[in-house]
Amino acid sequence: MTSRRDVRNPVQDYLERIVAACGGTAGEVAAYIPELAAADPDVFALALATVDGHVYSVGDADLRYSIQSISKPFTYALALDDLGVAEVDAHIDVEPSGEGFNQISLAADTGRPRNPMINAGAITAASLVAGEGPDEQFERIRRWYSSYADHDLALDEDIHRSELATAHRNRAIAHMLREFDMLGDDPEAALDLYVRQCSLSVDTRDLALMAATLANGGVNPRSGRRVSQVECVERVLSVMATCGMYDAAGDWISAVGMPAKSGVSGGIIAVLPGQVGLAVFSPRLDVHGNSARGVTVMERMSRDMEMHLMHVGRSSRTALRASYPISRLASRRRRTDADQEVLDSLEGRARVYELHGDLLFAETEHVVRTIVDDGPELVVLDVRRVDDVADIARVTLWGLRAFLRQAGGELVRVDPSGVLPDPDDADDFEPGPDSPGPSPSVEDLEAAARWCESELLRRHGGGEQPGEQELVADHPLLRDLSPEARSVVEAALERASYAAGETVLEAGGPFAGVHVIVRGGAVAVLDEPGRERVRLVTLGPGTSFGELALGTDDVQETAVRATADLELLRLSAASLERITTEHPAVALEVWRAMCRDGYRVADRALRAGVTRG
Amino acid sequence: MTSRRDVRNPVQDYLERIVAACGGTAGEVAAYIPELAAADPDVFALALATVDGHVYSVGDADLRYSIQSISKPFTYALALDDLGVAEVDAHIDVEPSGEGFNQISLAADTGRPRNPMINAGAITAASLVAGEGPDEQFERIRRWYSSYADHDLALDEDIHRSELATAHRNRAIAHMLREFDMLGDDPEAALDLYVRQCSLSVDTRDLALMAATLANGGVNPRSGRRVSQVECVERVLSVMATCGMYDAAGDWISAVGMPAKSGVSGGIIAVLPGQVGLAVFSPRLDVHGNSARGVTVMERMSRDMEMHLMHVGRSSRTALRASYPISRLASRRRRTDADQEVLDSLEGRARVYELHGDLLFAETEHVVRTIVDDGPELVVLDVRRVDDVADIARVTLWGLRAFLRQAGGELVRVDPSGVLPDPDDADDFEPGPDSPGPSPSVEDLEAAARWCESELLRRHGGGEQPGEQELVADHPLLRDLSPEARSVVEAALERASYAAGETVLEAGGPFAGVHVIVRGGAVAVLDEPGRERVRLVTLGPGTSFGELALGTDDVQETAVRATADLELLRLSAASLERITTEHPAVALEVWRAMCRDGYRVADRALRAGVTRG
Repeated sequence: MTSRRDVRNPVQDYLERIVAACGGTAGEVAAYIPELAAADPDVFALALATVDGHVYSVGDADLRYSIQSISKPFTYALALDDLGVAEVDAHIDVEPSGEGFNQISLAADTGRPRNPMINAGAITAASLVAGEGPDEQFERIRRWYSSYADHDLALDEDIHRSELATAHRNRAIAHMLREFDMLGDDPEAALDLYVRQCSLSVDTRDLALMAATLANGGVNPRSGRRVSQVECVERVLSVMATCGMYDAAGDWISAVGMPAKSGVSGGIIAVLPGQVGLAVFSPRLDVHGNSARGVTVMERMSRDMEMHLMHVGRSSRTALRASYPISRLASRRRRTDADQEVLDSLEGRARVYELHGDLLFAETEHVVRTIVDDGPELVVLDVRRVDDVADIARVTLWGLRAFLRQAGGELVRVDPSGVLPDPDDADDFEPGPDSPGPSPSVEDLEAAARWCESELLRRHGGGEQPGEQELVADHPLLRDLSPEARSVVEAALERASYAAGETVLEAGGPFAGVHVIVRGGAVAVLDEPGRERVRLVTLGPGTSFGELALGTDDVQETAVRATADLELLRLSAASLERITTEHPAVALEVWRAMCRDGYRVADRALRAGVTRG
Repeated sequence: MTSRRDVRNPVQDYLERIVAACGGTAGEVAAYIPELAAADPDVFALALATVDGHVYSVGDADLRYSIQSISKPFTYALALDDLGVAEVDAHIDVEPSGEGFNQISLAADTGRPRNPMINAGAITAASLVAGEGPDEQFERIRRWYSSYADHDLALDEDIHRSELATAHRNRAIAHMLREFDMLGDDPEAALDLYVRQCSLSVDTRDLALMAATLANGGVNPRSGRRVSQVECVERVLSVMATCGMYDAAGDWISAVGMPAKSGVSGGIIAVLPGQVGLAVFSPRLDVHGNSARGVTVMERMSRDMEMHLMHVGRSSRTALRASYPISRLASRRRRTDADQEVLDSLEGRARVYELHGDLLFAETEHVVRTIVDDGPELVVLDVRRVDDVADIARVTLWGLRAFLRQAGGELVRVDPSGVLPDPDDADDFEPGPDSPGPSPSVEDLEAAARWCESELLRRHGGGEQPGEQELVADHPLLRDLSPEARSVVEAALERASYAAGETVLEAGGPFAGVHVIVRGGAVAVLDEPGRERVRLVTLGPGTSFGELALGTDDVQETAVRATADLELLRLSAASLERITTEHPAVALEVWRAMCRDGYRVADRALRAGVTRG
């Protein structure tokens, strides 16, 4: 049963195979400064960071190099964070230039750089970062990148010196920007700030985490800290999508389909929103100035791993996890036979809709349309497995409630963590005279089933409270007994009362007899180590408890607690034993009745299990 | 309980409110031909088509107009379909030009148009469409668009005539393309073909469905027919994302974030892959040549409805619907107490992972990592609610099996519809000498639980077959009886045999006694009108059936069928009655034992229900 090959985590294995399949020595290492020219052309690294912070890597993912132009989206993000979108837009446009990275590309009329991914736009973005002077600005940039990487990044002084000495074109760009009043008074300071940001030292794992922070909507998946606002992240990703790969942007978005940014030292990052951040490093560059092997690996990953942004998933069909009439839940509230008959006749009037995943427009539209078509009176929305609820989903679901209420219906949420708060619960809500108020929100499906059943009984008859006499006479343990047997059992019943909150039976105690509730209510709670405390059965007048212990070696396995002031009649274990020895004919009738009750409960529970399994 | 306002479908209501909030009379109607100049500037239409084919509309969605440049992506799609991506790429690049729609934008060296969304590229794309001469080419284009719209589209002859008469710039472009050998011999024919495609008449519902077909990966959501291959659709959407809105592409992708295309008559389509297709129509154009109010409405919808492509959802966390040890399923196979003890001691060795939605890379990575961390021996993957399985997911999940098998484990699929076929089942698979062969695939969780339990018993002891004597002696109905009672009951047992497939008990029949299985197996099946036939309990040697009828007014509610040649011992209803009257002391013991059995089954079923609810 064992394979001979040494198999590790299959994802790791897969990534290694992709890298092995994408070799190649095409392209040239950047040589305009000695530090870049000295790079080992054959070094390679790939890192993939998930939005929950797990990092896979292949190759030399700890090797450090200067971040170069991969810095551009992050400084742009910081400028957006500091100044807001409108102010940044006034200085930097977001149109693809269709030109190389080092083109000046300023608008003829305003001098505004075409976008923040070319050098002119990036120098401008750096100059917009808040701070008293370049040193403070740079320190803010350094800390900002470090928050994205969840790792303290440092400047590579040698790179900084060399870059600054050879930055003739960027110096020209800076002065041209100054000429158009796009920079402050000191274009040299802006240039130096930009060159410093490009000289920050990163490794491929850092870059993957920086990309994953963008993929995660601005929250660093390792630290859990929000670095950028989600609106800024969407803007940054949009610009990366159209302008991130210079004049190969169209090719890139067609072939790879992820917002991306490359740097002259040989790195590329790519972001699949909501999914992963990717980084590759390989110093040989193609004619566009992008890492040649990096592009090949990214193309292969996008294709093989279906990471293309335009890849058509079918998420909009799957927000509706399940839907069924509430009657299939077989609420664990024991009902009198009369009430059960009323509920049976109303099958389908109350329906459960279990939702999951993110509720954006399309998912919600499908759910709402399904419910409108089904047309139930009471709708239970189980949103416990829902992750995110977009504003449009909220608005639409509350629109659904208005729709239901207009027809006399109601919407109940199973929403213990409050992902779908009721607008009528909001602080600023002023209910009108006709407002029926907030919709109920309950903890679990059992509570929803109880709510719906009570509501259906209230609306459609049933739910009347029979007298004590009737309750006892109708109880399954007594109703089929002969008159003689019944009078023996009734004489043996003891009356007991408990205050709300009191424990009637302890879990682990011995079988204590059969308890028939006359007034009030109780719950049986299953409380096992290592499992959540579960409400097993809800009990009201006319129902009984305690007899299940007969099935578990006379051990009471659930705790029973009064939920309201409780009055009950008890056929104690001792009385039952006494009847068994003193009145065998009566006992025979009692045990037979209890046998039938046991199989009746078993039958209902087995069917409910089938429905839900 | 009724609201005063007339509330319709809340989604419809919402769309109307968006449109009402985005009025405005900015912009100018195109006036270069009389037919366009005559358009009512105030007309407005919005249509939204879901990927399951439902169309919402607001305003005059049936008003017809010429498709104009919105034709470009569809003709490009047809050219891709006819020639393949490489051949089309040789004629038309995919880089954003950053220029207006009517710029010539040919590459200086090759004469290749920058992209298929500017006129030069679109004329070239039309000329690439297969067909003997322009008429056949046009008919193919017309039918192609009609398949996208699920509606037979017709040429507007007046528009065609006027457009052709004034197409000076496009004529210049066509001749320039001819000069660079990008067109065939007849540039006038190519121009006419392009002008005809632009003159096809559509309404806003048509456009929304055309967009929804792209959103749906090339399958028309109304007809269900595949129009385009998914690879071509991804390419078309990529180009629309970077080039669809001319020189406003960057602004558009930042503000709206959907691949889109506009036309001079005032329409815009936008596509949210996997979700919806949108179309708006309003004839006043902004300076870029895009519908002014159309852009406003689209921006508003994108923002309010969170339709931005870069919007970060959290789909990667939700593919794992639930996970739990198989023991929580409480397999409906009744086990002997000895086997049950073995299984209890192996709690956690077999785990269920319920998946749902689309399995792309990130979803699968998370599932695999969770399973590797949990480290169970047997893994049940329930993929019944999975929609799409990407190749990467398949590869990774089978990598997981290799990982499990290396440690002596196994992977079982609950996969009745075969979304995750076993590679070892493939026709071209040649199993090696050590290959353990395909993994089991079962119909439901109950079958998975049975498989895992048998496998755990096989691997870790248990499952031995006790003799008939032991089976009967150990049965809950007999084991606690006094020697005297036991001998009375044993004397009353009748032996019976059934062939595999034979019905032992009919549903609806009377209580027929307690049946203890000595050899073979059986299933109890619940067969209610309007519900699926459900396997309720699986029965093997040492287990019994028939007694649940005691809980349902002596009506046998399930049918019991032998699944293998069956031998059993029956305590018939008549024998039970006879014992009750003739041996009351024995009967008391028997009913008491059966009572305990009833509550035992009830207790187990209730707990299983809690786990699954």
